[in-house]
Amino acid sequence: MTDAGDADLRLVDMTLRDGMHAVDHQFTPDQMRDVARALNDAEMDVIEMSHGDGMGGSSINYGFAAASTGEYLDAVAPEVTESDLSVLMLPGIGTVEHIELAASKGADICRIATHVTEADISEEHFEYVVDHGMEAAGLLMLSHMAPPETVLEQAKLMEEYGAEAVYVMDSAGAMLPNDVEERVSLLSEELSIDVGFHAHNNLGLAIGNTLTALDAGAVTIDGCLRGLGAGSGNAQMEVLVGTLKKAGYDVNPDFFGVMDAAEDTLLPMLTEDTMPELDNDSLILGYAGVYSSFLRHTRRASERYGVDPREVLIELGEMEVVGGQEDLITDVASRLAEERGGDGAATAEGDD
Amino acid sequence: MTDAGDADLRLVDMTLRDGMHAVDHQFTPDQMRDVARALNDAEMDVIEMSHGDGMGGSSINYGFAAASTGEYLDAVAPEVTESDLSVLMLPGIGTVEHIELAASKGADICRIATHVTEADISEEHFEYVVDHGMEAAGLLMLSHMAPPETVLEQAKLMEEYGAEAVYVMDSAGAMLPNDVEERVSLLSEELSIDVGFHAHNNLGLAIGNTLTALDAGAVTIDGCLRGLGAGSGNAQMEVLVGTLKKAGYDVNPDFFGVMDAAEDTLLPMLTEDTMPELDNDSLILGYAGVYSSFLRHTRRASERYGVDPREVLIELGEMEVVGGQEDLITDVASRLAEERGGDGAATAEGDD
Repeated sequence: MTDAGDADLRLVDMTLRDGMHAVDHQFTPDQMRDVARALNDAEMDVIEMSHGDGMGGSSINYGFAAASTGEYLDAVAPEVTESDLSVLMLPGIGTVEHIELAASKGADICRIATHVTEADISEEHFEYVVDHGMEAAGLLMLSHMAPPETVLEQAKLMEEYGAEAVYVMDSAGAMLPNDVEERVSLLSEELSIDVGFHAHNNLGLAIGNTLTALDAGAVTIDGCLRGLGAGSGNAQMEVLVGTLKKAGYDVNPDFFGVMDAAEDTLLPMLTEDTMPELDNDSLILGYAGVYSSFLRHTRRASERYGVDPREVLIELGEMEVVGGQEDLITDVASRLAEERGGDGAATAEGDD
Repeated sequence: MTDAGDADLRLVDMTLRDGMHAVDHQFTPDQMRDVARALNDAEMDVIEMSHGDGMGGSSINYGFAAASTGEYLDAVAPEVTESDLSVLMLPGIGTVEHIELAASKGADICRIATHVTEADISEEHFEYVVDHGMEAAGLLMLSHMAPPETVLEQAKLMEEYGAEAVYVMDSAGAMLPNDVEERVSLLSEELSIDVGFHAHNNLGLAIGNTLTALDAGAVTIDGCLRGLGAGSGNAQMEVLVGTLKKAGYDVNPDFFGVMDAAEDTLLPMLTEDTMPELDNDSLILGYAGVYSSFLRHTRRASERYGVDPREVLIELGEMEVVGGQEDLITDVASRLAEERGGDGAATAEGDD
């Protein structure tokens, strides 16, 4: 690890982590190495790598990756001489053994992510990361689902556990600029550690919201080359670097180097199917503020009850349904069908 | 023409006009009719149609369209019963005969576009549009190239000529939120007519900048289904409608209807090649603030002199070069090569 530069702003490239969602976690170790080398050459501040759902995510539930965490780390870590190397850990998916592994293979940072109201499950993981000599950071997922005061309270827990930075994550791409401003500015005022922001592009606001977050006091920002990432993707890193330079921000990464990493190194690894796009599915998820895993269940239930899946998703968003409550989807579809005339189920094509 | 709704905000869908650039002006009259019908059904406020460079654009210089202005109008106008139908006119490309034609075929609005410092060439066209009973609006292209005071002075000319609205056009997608805010707020304060905004997505800010424009007083906004449009495309209309609804704006078009127009009607007409994307070419054009027509010449000159075309484009942007000054491109490439060691020309592969 070497500090990649002097600018206060720290950019975290997650092409090899959140970007793994876009390729169904199928980057090979060789591909990861090539992308990491290009990013390191471009003096990216931080390079994050792991299964899209963090270390240990490779499973029937979250999708098997093309290689193990250890294999990926062996391929990538030796290339990362200028940047800091980060791994992701979701308590409940990754284990302390993964933290040990990452530390032993040379990771500099471990970022620990929890649902925005569940920071308390991460205490032990933070301790373990700090004990293993890594920098710890906390990510509050689906931060749009909690009011700013709750986000702050949860961020304070992470700070107390040892986080050196806490990120407001707009995991569903559901935040409007005002939502970002309220959360990031409150955390910036009240925490003594760095505040970060992580955007998704479901409402077309990944770059716009990132600028808003920086105005509000964020000093560390997530993005992916070519706008890779789950769903409609994250803030497009090469665009972010160019836009920030144009706006007068002092950024460490080399603009042309990051552009080259995006188009010369990464792009040939992608297919049309793996390019994130802002389609109607992404849009309605961001509008409703629900996580992408609901989409498939909602489609099935909506077909059964003859209702528009978009209405079901919007209703689920208003109910603030979270992962694990998928059984509510059928209830909502059924209720909406009844409200629309009581015979919605007449169009049912059977329960599959 | 019928007023499509009561909301003060007026959305202008340009899928069949700026979107024509993305398909090399090859929408057929049947395709135009289908898209217009879907937009009309969704109660879009305004539907704009014509060659991408306005009526009369079909030519060897700007690219031949699949049909004539009259054929397109015959196909589209009968479908537009709820929305207002708009056509585009660039003085120097379109003629007064085109205005007569559009009026006779039922167009409600003619928007007249000039370079941001050349509003004075449009006086006669505005008069002609008003005389023919159409609503006239003015578009100031490449508005990032002039300071806010100049944009205002030019907008006032258009107001004087009879414009009922003037649009700040970020034709190169080069504006940061602050650039938008300064120009739109000044026009909103000083003009007695409506102020509009037209975004491109080269810096990933099409939707973000549009929200900024609305905050600053804009009341009419351009966009295209699926983010179609020249270069990296315009503000994606269905995303715009959803984001504005979510932000509490009162919009006339039906959100689901616009989504359906985008994905059920338009998308099957597009190929991967015609989908706008935010690639390195788009990004560097937005960063440099130069128009996309410079790209081809710059590539050729840069190859000849062995310099990075991105540096040439950035230099051209700083020189505020405009269309018609393409001969400067070679000078810049040659000068940059000299500055980088005097032997840049050694890598030349001949002047093609």
